[in-house]
Amino acid sequence: MRTLIRNGMIVAAVDEFKGDVLIEGEKIIAVGENLDPMADHVIDAAGKYVLPGGVDQHVHYSFEFKGERVRGFETSHAAVAGGTTTVVEFVNQEQGKGMADTIFEFDEKEVSKQAMADYSYHAVVCDPVDSTFEEIHDLPNRGISTVKLFMAYKGMPFHSDDEALYKALVAAKDAGVTVMVHAENADVIDILQKKYVSEGKTAPYYHALSRPTRVELEATQRVINLAAMAEAPVYIVHVTAGEVMKAIRSAKNDGLPIYGETCVQYLMLDKDDLAKPNFEGAKYVMSPALRTKADQEALWEAVDNGWLNAISTDHCGFDWESQKHMGIDNFTDIPNGSPGVENRLGVLWTYGVNTGRISRQRFVDLFATTPAKNMGLDHCKGHIGVGMDADLVIYDPDKTSVISNENSLHGVDFSTFEGYTQEGEVTKVFLRGKLVVDDGEFIGEKGDGKFIPGKPFGLCFNEAKTNKELDQSKV
Amino acid sequence: MRTLIRNGMIVAAVDEFKGDVLIEGEKIIAVGENLDPMADHVIDAAGKYVLPGGVDQHVHYSFEFKGERVRGFETSHAAVAGGTTTVVEFVNQEQGKGMADTIFEFDEKEVSKQAMADYSYHAVVCDPVDSTFEEIHDLPNRGISTVKLFMAYKGMPFHSDDEALYKALVAAKDAGVTVMVHAENADVIDILQKKYVSEGKTAPYYHALSRPTRVELEATQRVINLAAMAEAPVYIVHVTAGEVMKAIRSAKNDGLPIYGETCVQYLMLDKDDLAKPNFEGAKYVMSPALRTKADQEALWEAVDNGWLNAISTDHCGFDWESQKHMGIDNFTDIPNGSPGVENRLGVLWTYGVNTGRISRQRFVDLFATTPAKNMGLDHCKGHIGVGMDADLVIYDPDKTSVISNENSLHGVDFSTFEGYTQEGEVTKVFLRGKLVVDDGEFIGEKGDGKFIPGKPFGLCFNEAKTNKELDQSKV
Amino acid sequence: MRTLIRNGMIVAAVDEFKGDVLIEGEKIIAVGENLDPMADHVIDAAGKYVLPGGVDQHVHYSFEFKGERVRGFETSHAAVAGGTTTVVEFVNQEQGKGMADTIFEFDEKEVSKQAMADYSYHAVVCDPVDSTFEEIHDLPNRGISTVKLFMAYKGMPFHSDDEALYKALVAAKDAGVTVMVHAENADVIDILQKKYVSEGKTAPYYHALSRPTRVELEATQRVINLAAMAEAPVYIVHVTAGEVMKAIRSAKNDGLPIYGETCVQYLMLDKDDLAKPNFEGAKYVMSPALRTKADQEALWEAVDNGWLNAISTDHCGFDWESQKHMGIDNFTDIPNGSPGVENRLGVLWTYGVNTGRISRQRFVDLFATTPAKNMGLDHCKGHIGVGMDADLVIYDPDKTSVISNENSLHGVDFSTFEGYTQEGEVTKVFLRGKLVVDDGEFIGEKGDGKFIPGKPFGLCFNEAKTNKELDQSKV
Amino acid sequence: MRTLIRNGMIVAAVDEFKGDVLIEGEKIIAVGENLDPMADHVIDAAGKYVLPGGVDQHVHYSFEFKGERVRGFETSHAAVAGGTTTVVEFVNQEQGKGMADTIFEFDEKEVSKQAMADYSYHAVVCDPVDSTFEEIHDLPNRGISTVKLFMAYKGMPFHSDDEALYKALVAAKDAGVTVMVHAENADVIDILQKKYVSEGKTAPYYHALSRPTRVELEATQRVINLAAMAEAPVYIVHVTAGEVMKAIRSAKNDGLPIYGETCVQYLMLDKDDLAKPNFEGAKYVMSPALRTKADQEALWEAVDNGWLNAISTDHCGFDWESQKHMGIDNFTDIPNGSPGVENRLGVLWTYGVNTGRISRQRFVDLFATTPAKNMGLDHCKGHIGVGMDADLVIYDPDKTSVISNENSLHGVDFSTFEGYTQEGEVTKVFLRGKLVVDDGEFIGEKGDGKFIPGKPFGLCFNEAKTNKELDQSKV
Repeated sequence: MRTLIRNGMIVAAVDEFKGDVLIEGEKIIAVGENLDPMADHVIDAAGKYVLPGGVDQHVHYSFEFKGERVRGFETSHAAVAGGTTTVVEFVNQEQGKGMADTIFEFDEKEVSKQAMADYSYHAVVCDPVDSTFEEIHDLPNRGISTVKLFMAYKGMPFHSDDEALYKALVAAKDAGVTVMVHAENADVIDILQKKYVSEGKTAPYYHALSRPTRVELEATQRVINLAAMAEAPVYIVHVTAGEVMKAIRSAKNDGLPIYGETCVQYLMLDKDDLAKPNFEGAKYVMSPALRTKADQEALWEAVDNGWLNAISTDHCGFDWESQKHMGIDNFTDIPNGSPGVENRLGVLWTYGVNTGRISRQRFVDLFATTPAKNMGLDHCKGHIGVGMDADLVIYDPDKTSVISNENSLHGVDFSTFEGYTQEGEVTKVFLRGKLVVDDGEFIGEKGDGKFIPGKPFGLCFNEAKTNKELDQSKV
Repeated sequence: MRTLIRNGMIVAAVDEFKGDVLIEGEKIIAVGENLDPMADHVIDAAGKYVLPGGVDQHVHYSFEFKGERVRGFETSHAAVAGGTTTVVEFVNQEQGKGMADTIFEFDEKEVSKQAMADYSYHAVVCDPVDSTFEEIHDLPNRGISTVKLFMAYKGMPFHSDDEALYKALVAAKDAGVTVMVHAENADVIDILQKKYVSEGKTAPYYHALSRPTRVELEATQRVINLAAMAEAPVYIVHVTAGEVMKAIRSAKNDGLPIYGETCVQYLMLDKDDLAKPNFEGAKYVMSPALRTKADQEALWEAVDNGWLNAISTDHCGFDWESQKHMGIDNFTDIPNGSPGVENRLGVLWTYGVNTGRISRQRFVDLFATTPAKNMGLDHCKGHIGVGMDADLVIYDPDKTSVISNENSLHGVDFSTFEGYTQEGEVTKVFLRGKLVVDDGEFIGEKGDGKFIPGKPFGLCFNEAKTNKELDQSKV
Repeated sequence: MRTLIRNGMIVAAVDEFKGDVLIEGEKIIAVGENLDPMADHVIDAAGKYVLPGGVDQHVHYSFEFKGERVRGFETSHAAVAGGTTTVVEFVNQEQGKGMADTIFEFDEKEVSKQAMADYSYHAVVCDPVDSTFEEIHDLPNRGISTVKLFMAYKGMPFHSDDEALYKALVAAKDAGVTVMVHAENADVIDILQKKYVSEGKTAPYYHALSRPTRVELEATQRVINLAAMAEAPVYIVHVTAGEVMKAIRSAKNDGLPIYGETCVQYLMLDKDDLAKPNFEGAKYVMSPALRTKADQEALWEAVDNGWLNAISTDHCGFDWESQKHMGIDNFTDIPNGSPGVENRLGVLWTYGVNTGRISRQRFVDLFATTPAKNMGLDHCKGHIGVGMDADLVIYDPDKTSVISNENSLHGVDFSTFEGYTQEGEVTKVFLRGKLVVDDGEFIGEKGDGKFIPGKPFGLCFNEAKTNKELDQSKV
Repeated sequence: MRTLIRNGMIVAAVDEFKGDVLIEGEKIIAVGENLDPMADHVIDAAGKYVLPGGVDQHVHYSFEFKGERVRGFETSHAAVAGGTTTVVEFVNQEQGKGMADTIFEFDEKEVSKQAMADYSYHAVVCDPVDSTFEEIHDLPNRGISTVKLFMAYKGMPFHSDDEALYKALVAAKDAGVTVMVHAENADVIDILQKKYVSEGKTAPYYHALSRPTRVELEATQRVINLAAMAEAPVYIVHVTAGEVMKAIRSAKNDGLPIYGETCVQYLMLDKDDLAKPNFEGAKYVMSPALRTKADQEALWEAVDNGWLNAISTDHCGFDWESQKHMGIDNFTDIPNGSPGVENRLGVLWTYGVNTGRISRQRFVDLFATTPAKNMGLDHCKGHIGVGMDADLVIYDPDKTSVISNENSLHGVDFSTFEGYTQEGEVTKVFLRGKLVVDDGEFIGEKGDGKFIPGKPFGLCFNEAKTNKELDQSKV
């Protein structure tokens, strides 16, 4: 079956042009002018943009914080409705169990039949025994090409010390696995948290004060040094501040394979949001903490220049009423994380593209193309190209709305971007050729999403080095 | 008339896939799988790469040095045979004449009927009077969107002092014109040249000693400061050294719109080549001078990371016997510059792509896509995309040859890369849909090339800022 | 004849202690406790500081600007009354005359019989012919160990281009002569001055706008590069801004012998002073221009850390009424420079030492000890040490006054620091053992000052390298 | 009783002159020319240097490593014979005991009756309980103004984690106590040690490979960040490498109060020494490990420029035969540390001063004056100044010898600098006015040394800030 999307402005990371995209089955088979008018379905995209489906390389559909758990894959249609057709989920290793086993048991139990977006997995190292580091070598065979470690969260099961981090880096490097790191100094945060709480400073705003930029900078510099010793690449997740970005850029300038992302909220919000009255501030409790407006500017400049190569959401579906309120008397009990996967496209388009901070090409790169490369998913995701999965978003730039939780599918009782204007609307989404959003309404079904294995050597930096060998298989 | 190129590995800056390119007239109208088998011509590219025709943003077909002139556009088929379908020529303003008038008189007299590659022009400021700086505002209307100034070459008509440079930057900024700069400190070079000559040190090698890296670094830092004061972007041509690249990168990191290119020879050769006996060293006399192997490595890293965004040739067709020998007794009389436009693709493929220093995507970016953007030519050049000019190169990776001047079309009596191995061969080239190289032989004719006007705001950095306004015209 | 100064707090660059200084003739012969109570004169300094007489390495008693000339050595008692017992004067070379000849003709005519402070000379290169650069080798034999070049002031006789600068650096390096540089880009200033004047923007404030920090930064980076090529040290005078200081510090960190000073006014005033009404702003017209409060802070930090190693005044005695008013209709005609030699100690003590920005040790170092080293005068000046000239200041910390031109000796109709509070008072000054200030009143006479030859290799950086050879002569 | 040292070349950090030093009792009471010839003792120092007695701020007379203990204060005459009259000893806190109690119990038991040099103490945090951090506030009252923490040595009782470090910084800042840090990443060292041992790589050279420069760089950057958050100064001990020095310098340039020292051995030796055959390499097993010759050059440049402000020894008197051999089968069992206190003056004079790397002034500064300031001992130590302790060294520059353990007093069976030439000889030493070395022979006795309390706010950086308040007490 063939579907033709006609006369849209087709946007890629390198160019854009007015024309057609031709889909056969799950794949894009041609882009051009005046393609096959005899297709089974013909969709007119005149006056609209045709974008690649987004890849959100950083989401949480299984995260637990002090017993509270985020909304799961049953809410993954929110991603799709927001133009993101692929999500990459972090799964915390269970103690005493292999990382891949943990992942695929979770997959079978909670994901494969529920997912409405395509998905891939990161393995989170939680049990730092020898067998765990050995397993890293085998992960790519199971379609897992990234591991993550948390330097933050002292005392929690997913916290890692330098020993675990270094061992993971050494193993991952040989395996072609990319190590992703949540970089914050756990000890200092712990001391500052206890200090504020002991002083009766328990409001959400102290979350920010107990996690100053330096705790992130310190951990980032530390893992850069550990990675340099292990001769391994490393990917720093959710970079929040100009100073941290500069540490990454500086390492890259020194020839080290150090990369990083930021998230939509760090580009848009700041720590004053944590001071909102009536415990509203709790909605913005996430780690690392929100920073300043100057940091926002530094991050916009960073993503425009490629100093950070992707924009994710760190989506966490915690309810405000029923979950965030756990910490009403103590900010350290507020579950960390906020929802955002549904708003990534709309917010970045409105406040990035339409303000001139980033071009449409750069937007597509940060939203889909490079995240797919980072994750080893670019064999089928992230780009409107021939042979790629037909994950497509038709975006109508002329509609304007106000973001409101009322219209949201994410299953949480608040929106992180409540009240923000959105210029443009996701009118149609195709997931591997299937129309899953029409007229702005989600029309797909549970189980539409499928697992996409990540290939090793995902990070862009490997492209060149592995060029020759991949050559043979591809030509 | 339609031509179908089938089953090639089509390479773009963002991806590559096995498939077809469909050409109608001068344009690419589709890329995909199994496109129109009923095309008038069907060319099988199985097992070969299909690349965008190259854009060499830095060539000299009219340069004069102490009365000696380079080969002209009658040798431009050498570019085409080497896979470069668009060249951008520097035209030195005549004293007392407008820059555009100088260019288009030259165009009519020497280019339009002879060019075998498409071409565009840079205006070189030589007469720094008020009317010249005023004319900059009008250049884009005549399809000229770049001006160049030479900080080097004390006493020559094309040398510019800081006053001219600053005035050009101020004018260019308002006009959307990009200022390109040859950055070397003219005074120090002049003193060192006189010193060496007075000491009887007249061999070609003293060319390098009289132009140390610091003369380039100084001038680069100077123009960065001038540009910062004028709030104008600037493009540093032919960057030769790691230290100079770092000055550019550092300025970029500081938020300044400072860009630069390097050239093939600075990636491949070093100053020891100037020491070759029997005046062979004269073949490598160019400015700035060749540096060290460590600089080559720094430059490869720079182009791989985008710290320099294009690789050009600074092609100068001076004969060794009849022209370079002018300086047999005094290196300062050796015409500066060497040929290279014919070898850019082959050398970069062999020593860049096939050694793993850069990916094929990065190669295409540096060879065609970004140079076209830099020059404001990306409306039709630099990319295999729908609606773009059908400038295409079919490259057979399986053929290997040795570069030799015997097979060259550039009209000069030596090759800068004589004896280097080339992996792969340009077997076919299309220029706006016309087959001009077949079986590795040039079959085009004089006049095939046409003038391509450069649009203002060429430099990538303007993409975002001018996004909104361009939007309307494009959708 | 012996004089004993008893029970003062004696301050040196390395320590301070309560005790006595014993003077015999022109020299200090001992420091200690309870020294020779039988001295001819015994002066009680209890409760007061005993400081070394200041060395102001940057004063102008002969400078001319568009025909207007500063006050001369007949006003040098102002320096002494302010605690500065040695000044170093810049003498502009006359065209066609040797630098030393120019200096010593001036010395005979205007200085030797009038000077009330000791003095030394800088030779200013104005006639950049071969014989001038050759003369540099001979300067140390005549007691001149520094030359100065002005990168600023396009079109004025004392302006130097890069050729002159580079030649001076090459010659000076061999001669052990230190090159001092006024670093500003003359071309850009010239363009901006013409621009503002043509727009009718003629008030003093445009002086600052026509000389932005970048013109200083550019020239500083340029001379650093030239010095690096010449392998010569260089001393940047009157550094005004944090960014410029950082360029110097960075060069030093790279192992280059690059040094710099700042001046009192750049630590205390800012460009808002130029906006004072009723042409008051003209009093603050000096070059480089005053900057911002943030720059003041950066400079205080720099002098505290030794990133700049001396604080001078750039003293220029131009009258406001009779001379500064030349530029009432055009800021470019305002003579550049302001008086300050009389206030250096008082201002630095009050706003540096007493605010805790610098220690007394650091103050002495910046005010006397290191300037003497910079100038090759440390064989007899800059330090309260045995064998040194008995140049001593007794400073009473308990007196407080308000700086007012009424009490000034500098012969100018305004004070740069009018109305500033001064904590402490210079009560007595000894010049080579002679009491020349008593009870705060100058009691010396014309001709008390004598020429002190500067020894070559003055700059601190030479200390180590020339250690061995000097060793023999000293032990 | 008065002693006069006549006609020596008296060297201070700021100057030097030929003259006399007059001692009364334990103090210097005057310096000058032709002082009191009627003194009780007159010593002729003509042709010799008179230096301040050295302050070695980093020695170990009580360190234990895996049950092995260094030689104690019964060998402290070695320091004195080598021109070091004050040593600062690190005392590891006993578990469950206060730091000061630990120190003064040790003092009474092992030091006060044995010390032949004056001494002061650093408290080493080993028991990171609340009472320990509280005790920091009281330490200055007991004459202890520095605490030290070890980031290295995983699993040993004196290892500290980030929590302890941060808490110490916070407490110390309020108390005016300087935190000193041994900066190495303990986890990575532990992994690398186990790796090498498991591979059978047990020779001393693997000590260096298991402690690469990056482990030191990482920990240094980490503690800089922790100190910045605590707003506390920090002092990095035994900096070994250019990269580490640059991290400290860079922090200082950013306005942070970060300081560091290096040690003689890091200036003189390199890791090839660890490869010496027959287990000779074990003599050079110390932590951090010896680096490269390029690092030596970087460190010489650093001490010459003040980027590191002191040169210590990290003296550890472990025997080679009886103690270092513990690790004959496993480098991790070799006691870490080597002797050096006896050779600091001789080696620095010969290879620093006499090679022109540092001036005599700079030598005195690094050897005595600034270490005394760092430690809060400058009220009586480190400088030949009036009122200071009469700790003086007479150094004869004309004698040359070869360093040999045979002539050593340090009580260890090898010398770290065996076979090195020493230019000059310590002929006499005065300790608080008492002649304790004569004709190069130690003639003092046990108990000559006394405890010198360190005052708070030792670090130079506090000088300025605390200027005002100290003022009152001093004048």
